Amino acid sequence: MKTFVKYTPQKFDECVNLHEVEQLAINKLTDNSLSYYYSGAGDEETLKENKDAFRRIHLNPRVLVDVSHIDTSCNILGQKISMPICIAPSALHKLASEKGENDTASAAHKLNTLMILSTLSSVKLEDVAESNKTGLRWFQLYVLKDREFTANIIKRAQKSGFKAIVLTVDAPILGSRERDQRVKFSLPKEISYENLTQTVLDSKQITQEEIKHSSSQIFNLFLDKMDPSLNWEVIKWIRSITTLPLILKGVHRADDAVLAAEMGVNGIIVSNHGGRQLDTVLSGVELLIPIAQALKKYRNIEIYVDGGIRRGTDVFKCLALGAKAVFLGRPILYGLACEGENGVRRVIEIIYKELVICMKLCGCRKVSEIGRDMVILKRTKF
Amino acid sequence: MKTFVKYTPQKFDECVNLHEVEQLAINKLTDNSLSYYYSGAGDEETLKENKDAFRRIHLNPRVLVDVSHIDTSCNILGQKISMPICIAPSALHKLASEKGENDTASAAHKLNTLMILSTLSSVKLEDVAESNKTGLRWFQLYVLKDREFTANIIKRAQKSGFKAIVLTVDAPILGSRERDQRVKFSLPKEISYENLTQTVLDSKQITQEEIKHSSSQIFNLFLDKMDPSLNWEVIKWIRSITTLPLILKGVHRADDAVLAAEMGVNGIIVSNHGGRQLDTVLSGVELLIPIAQALKKYRNIEIYVDGGIRRGTDVFKCLALGAKAVFLGRPILYGLACEGENGVRRVIEIIYKELVICMKLCGCRKVSEIGRDMVILKRTKF
Amino acid sequence: MKTFVKYTPQKFDECVNLHEVEQLAINKLTDNSLSYYYSGAGDEETLKENKDAFRRIHLNPRVLVDVSHIDTSCNILGQKISMPICIAPSALHKLASEKGENDTASAAHKLNTLMILSTLSSVKLEDVAESNKTGLRWFQLYVLKDREFTANIIKRAQKSGFKAIVLTVDAPILGSRERDQRVKFSLPKEISYENLTQTVLDSKQITQEEIKHSSSQIFNLFLDKMDPSLNWEVIKWIRSITTLPLILKGVHRADDAVLAAEMGVNGIIVSNHGGRQLDTVLSGVELLIPIAQALKKYRNIEIYVDGGIRRGTDVFKCLALGAKAVFLGRPILYGLACEGENGVRRVIEIIYKELVICMKLCGCRKVSEIGRDMVILKRTKF
Amino acid sequence: MKTFVKYTPQKFDECVNLHEVEQLAINKLTDNSLSYYYSGAGDEETLKENKDAFRRIHLNPRVLVDVSHIDTSCNILGQKISMPICIAPSALHKLASEKGENDTASAAHKLNTLMILSTLSSVKLEDVAESNKTGLRWFQLYVLKDREFTANIIKRAQKSGFKAIVLTVDAPILGSRERDQRVKFSLPKEISYENLTQTVLDSKQITQEEIKHSSSQIFNLFLDKMDPSLNWEVIKWIRSITTLPLILKGVHRADDAVLAAEMGVNGIIVSNHGGRQLDTVLSGVELLIPIAQALKKYRNIEIYVDGGIRRGTDVFKCLALGAKAVFLGRPILYGLACEGENGVRRVIEIIYKELVICMKLCGCRKVSEIGRDMVILKRTKF
Repeated sequence: MKTFVKYTPQKFDECVNLHEVEQLAINKLTDNSLSYYYSGAGDEETLKENKDAFRRIHLNPRVLVDVSHIDTSCNILGQKISMPICIAPSALHKLASEKGENDTASAAHKLNTLMILSTLSSVKLEDVAESNKTGLRWFQLYVLKDREFTANIIKRAQKSGFKAIVLTVDAPILGSRERDQRVKFSLPKEISYENLTQTVLDSKQITQEEIKHSSSQIFNLFLDKMDPSLNWEVIKWIRSITTLPLILKGVHRADDAVLAAEMGVNGIIVSNHGGRQLDTVLSGVELLIPIAQALKKYRNIEIYVDGGIRRGTDVFKCLALGAKAVFLGRPILYGLACEGENGVRRVIEIIYKELVICMKLCGCRKVSEIGRDMVILKRTKF
Repeated sequence: MKTFVKYTPQKFDECVNLHEVEQLAINKLTDNSLSYYYSGAGDEETLKENKDAFRRIHLNPRVLVDVSHIDTSCNILGQKISMPICIAPSALHKLASEKGENDTASAAHKLNTLMILSTLSSVKLEDVAESNKTGLRWFQLYVLKDREFTANIIKRAQKSGFKAIVLTVDAPILGSRERDQRVKFSLPKEISYENLTQTVLDSKQITQEEIKHSSSQIFNLFLDKMDPSLNWEVIKWIRSITTLPLILKGVHRADDAVLAAEMGVNGIIVSNHGGRQLDTVLSGVELLIPIAQALKKYRNIEIYVDGGIRRGTDVFKCLALGAKAVFLGRPILYGLACEGENGVRRVIEIIYKELVICMKLCGCRKVSEIGRDMVILKRTKF
Repeated sequence: MKTFVKYTPQKFDECVNLHEVEQLAINKLTDNSLSYYYSGAGDEETLKENKDAFRRIHLNPRVLVDVSHIDTSCNILGQKISMPICIAPSALHKLASEKGENDTASAAHKLNTLMILSTLSSVKLEDVAESNKTGLRWFQLYVLKDREFTANIIKRAQKSGFKAIVLTVDAPILGSRERDQRVKFSLPKEISYENLTQTVLDSKQITQEEIKHSSSQIFNLFLDKMDPSLNWEVIKWIRSITTLPLILKGVHRADDAVLAAEMGVNGIIVSNHGGRQLDTVLSGVELLIPIAQALKKYRNIEIYVDGGIRRGTDVFKCLALGAKAVFLGRPILYGLACEGENGVRRVIEIIYKELVICMKLCGCRKVSEIGRDMVILKRTKF
Repeated sequence: MKTFVKYTPQKFDECVNLHEVEQLAINKLTDNSLSYYYSGAGDEETLKENKDAFRRIHLNPRVLVDVSHIDTSCNILGQKISMPICIAPSALHKLASEKGENDTASAAHKLNTLMILSTLSSVKLEDVAESNKTGLRWFQLYVLKDREFTANIIKRAQKSGFKAIVLTVDAPILGSRERDQRVKFSLPKEISYENLTQTVLDSKQITQEEIKHSSSQIFNLFLDKMDPSLNWEVIKWIRSITTLPLILKGVHRADDAVLAAEMGVNGIIVSNHGGRQLDTVLSGVELLIPIAQALKKYRNIEIYVDGGIRRGTDVFKCLALGAKAVFLGRPILYGLACEGENGVRRVIEIIYKELVICMKLCGCRKVSEIGRDMVILKRTKF
């Protein structure tokens, strides 16, 4: 039997979907960088589930709706953006492109969408802000043992025009990513954590015992600098430092989500950290379901989600299940690796176009029409 | 271990089932044509599910019934045909055989079954009618932005003896079929959309922006000509133009099916467009289940179904779950590619013979005996 | 990684399980014979399910039971046999060994278990009876269009000491077995249906139309000779001819099983004919579950089952779910192909030994202790 | 597409998880030893399920808990050990390392955890005790037909400082392990069952009939020496000989577990014997669920579990589902094969470190905080 045209794109502009962008990027990245970007925790079950879960959720399209005009814009914490597809925080964009986070921020800006900058960025937050003044940016925060430094970086972010603080709550310690350990991930000389001051980096508190079975620089950084004693008190502490809205990233349980709402948190990103922290937790979209249910009666908290989103239909399903917007992680890095700012832009444009087609074929003219009845959860439930 | 006789047929008349016909056809068709016929939307999950779903539905045969006489005839909108297996509308049959839709219509006619001709046929509807005068034919309608042309083609169909209008409702825009995009599907010079007048084809309304990420001629045709503003008002409009019965093709939801019934529509084809429009919708036969349930109390609307039907047992299962008849899409095109009219006939004869065996082994002597109790839906439900 | 010892037995006496016997037999049989023995209907889904279903049924063993003495004997229609493992009827044993059904009958006799001889045996029923006088034998009956011949063969069976008539009810027509069609199965010259008289075989009633798409001699035999008008009346007719107990083989539905019980049938073999008749019916063991449930209140009917039984644990599960005994089909033929009578004996001894181990490890000392609570049906049900 | 770094470790200290340790060990062991260690019963369905079941159980992590201090210690029958990860009894450690059980005991001792020594150890129980005086050890008991010997070995164990008797209840006969039969497993000359006295070994009671289809020395040993008449009376008998606590290993059913509790047994190890006894029983962790439920109201019995535990997340899931501790079987032997005492230690350290990470990422600071709500049982249940 003739196998037919299995097209592996040779050039970036031939890519018709994000899977192909990923393929190209894998070929471009060094083993060191790829292992860092690609790896999930443990047996990478959750890494795989993040994508697979979407195949178990079915669309339920409505026909004969006038879809000649589609409006994808949405409001995130009161700010209007062009689409409910945003850029998740991730470390070290310079592993993928020379200008690193500056490329990413420019792309987000030009498409009028939101980017979250990581504490562990390879470009200084002030520089990212400077080169993309008007774009909507939030700042992802890791709370370090050094609370003075932490307070300071929050203030720096606010001063530089970041519009919210996104506190990562699922990383009191780094997950065990075995690909990193096997390649013994290390920072290339020309790249560093530009937001971290020299003082912070110099104070070695890590013990020999702790690094014994670890071979990854990033893992060691966490053991050494990040604060594993983080608890719900930190919310009050952050509120005492900044007036910015506060988002929790990495909430998994409905009771934790309710607690966040009760404490006045402005938003949560339902996330398993791209399957990189704890293996065998549920996929991002499956975590979303009970959380959205539990937060129905709380009006002042917004829900976002990330994890395995590769198709416009994935975005649509997340919205139907209660998310206000979704965040893309690895695909952004893959676009960056392929063609810098242009690569990021094209990645977002591809999935955006798919979302538009999905909305048209489902009979939803604006994101507010993407209701719970647009998806069917159980394949076997009729 | 000796692997035993894996027979790949070399000749069409050695094919014992529709899978083998497909294999032969794949070898015969050009990449351009094959990509167009074979492709599904997105990751082709629904394309695959259309076939797989039948494996999850089990037969529940009755024994010791006298099956020496089997009657497969059925009534469709009051017309008797020889079997509940009909030909779905599909575009451009000349991609598969020289005489295109004329071959298909002849085969349908000789077997005394129903064929639906596509708006996008490669033979003019009047010519198809002329060469097969007495065969039962319905006309599939795409509503174009040019409503005058649309009204006119409805009248042409009625005048040429087509007995119903089948309005496609799941294609306000074409689904994203990546195989088409990769081969940049284009019409061979000698083939054209014969029902579309030159005026219609000439009025280019498509913008450069719209075709930016699209490389397929058929995709562009939809962007340019088809009317994405279609809504339930169109039913009244069609009724004002023709006295023919009206069928909606592409209904997915039970509430839409009920709406159609309430509006006096004569029939619906439950269909996901062969998995070509929106990926990750349910399979055709699974869509059928809640719709048949919801329409139980409506006497004046008939239900048909298509999607992934390759075996007589598949036909039988659809009838058991509430369909009056099923429609074959790709298998017809594969038969056409193998041996023109004769190929189409043989495809239908193979699956017809399987249906007869299935009816005999299930103890159902006529289609009206194929009740809901003849299938078991959940493998694990006892 | 070193792959370790994957032992493919070279000699029959090295086989440790029935899978290995099958492997050896596949190598020994001609394509013609193998296709006939091995083939299932359609896509062979049910053929596969017959085996797979046992993996979804879990054992629930009881510990600390004195299992120093195990009694596997059981009573079948009042006759005691040594084990609840019997030989299913199958056609043409001479395709596998020179002495054909005589070998099979000897093995059954020596192990003191029951064999059912097929109407389509390649040794005359009187000869089988003659060479194994005291062994327990039942006679499988196909009702032919020629009712005089049929009445006569029933009388011959009773006269020759067969102790029950096993009426096949799931074959008004033969299932479509595509392996047979591909090799165009035909009888070797030296082998014939020895129970069928010349008169019966000569009267050709089959039409050209009917054999059009069929290429298998066995399929044609059915079209020509077997009676597709069989219905529940046949029970009275058989009762009028013989005093032997009557078993129905091939019952699939609980309502048909109840009907059989109400009509005074003595036993049923729950069976899908080895997946050879109608594809996508449930596995034998899954069919058993609702039937055993429905027949609970009927004391005078016994339930047996066949289909995919390859392990002692499979036998045990069938007993737990309500069967009085199980029947082996293909494994007997594979044993026969490997080493004639000795091969059949060894096949039964292997699975018998497995049953004994299973009973010991489950804490069941006799077959009557193998109750419903010894199995867990749903993997996910706790 | 570049496949990236698939690291197969060349050296033991490069192994980052227990799968890699297994791989290395497979390369080191002889076929004879490997077959004995690796093999499961029958088709090895349960062997496989033991691992796979953990993938169907999902973690439900709590965030924003101060996890700067983690305490993994636990109490087992009143004795504090450093972690809830213990060493299951297994036979013949000298097949893997020269010092055999002495290596294993030393490793357990140094990590301050519990080891269970097998009746079938290749080092005398007194010698194991002598070389690791203060380590916590329990003694696994097979009850032999020779009850005098059995009584004596119980006394020897108590005298040598073993702190509990672990009675194996799922092996009245050995399961059928086909890998053993294929390699005809036999003891290397220099290795023997050191706890069994010569008198016991000499009295051959096994008949020729019984060993007919068996080719494995270990299987024969069971046929010959072990007592298949074992029943619940044995508990009283053991109580009459020793004051040590009594644990039953191999309980599968909730009703048997309740019976054990009612009879005053001190603990049970829920276990399917590593999938080596009866194929198609449920996985260890799935057996645990209904048993833990049924024993809720019994305060004086502890529950442990083994089977397929390879990850810290597996340990955590067992604790969440009601186990006080888990036991590792094959991974210990693989560590032993790789590097003797050091290998065992490293195996435990790897999974221990994973457990610590899992506890931190789940927000559980001590084992008592690992409650039932920390896991989600059904992937599809929201």
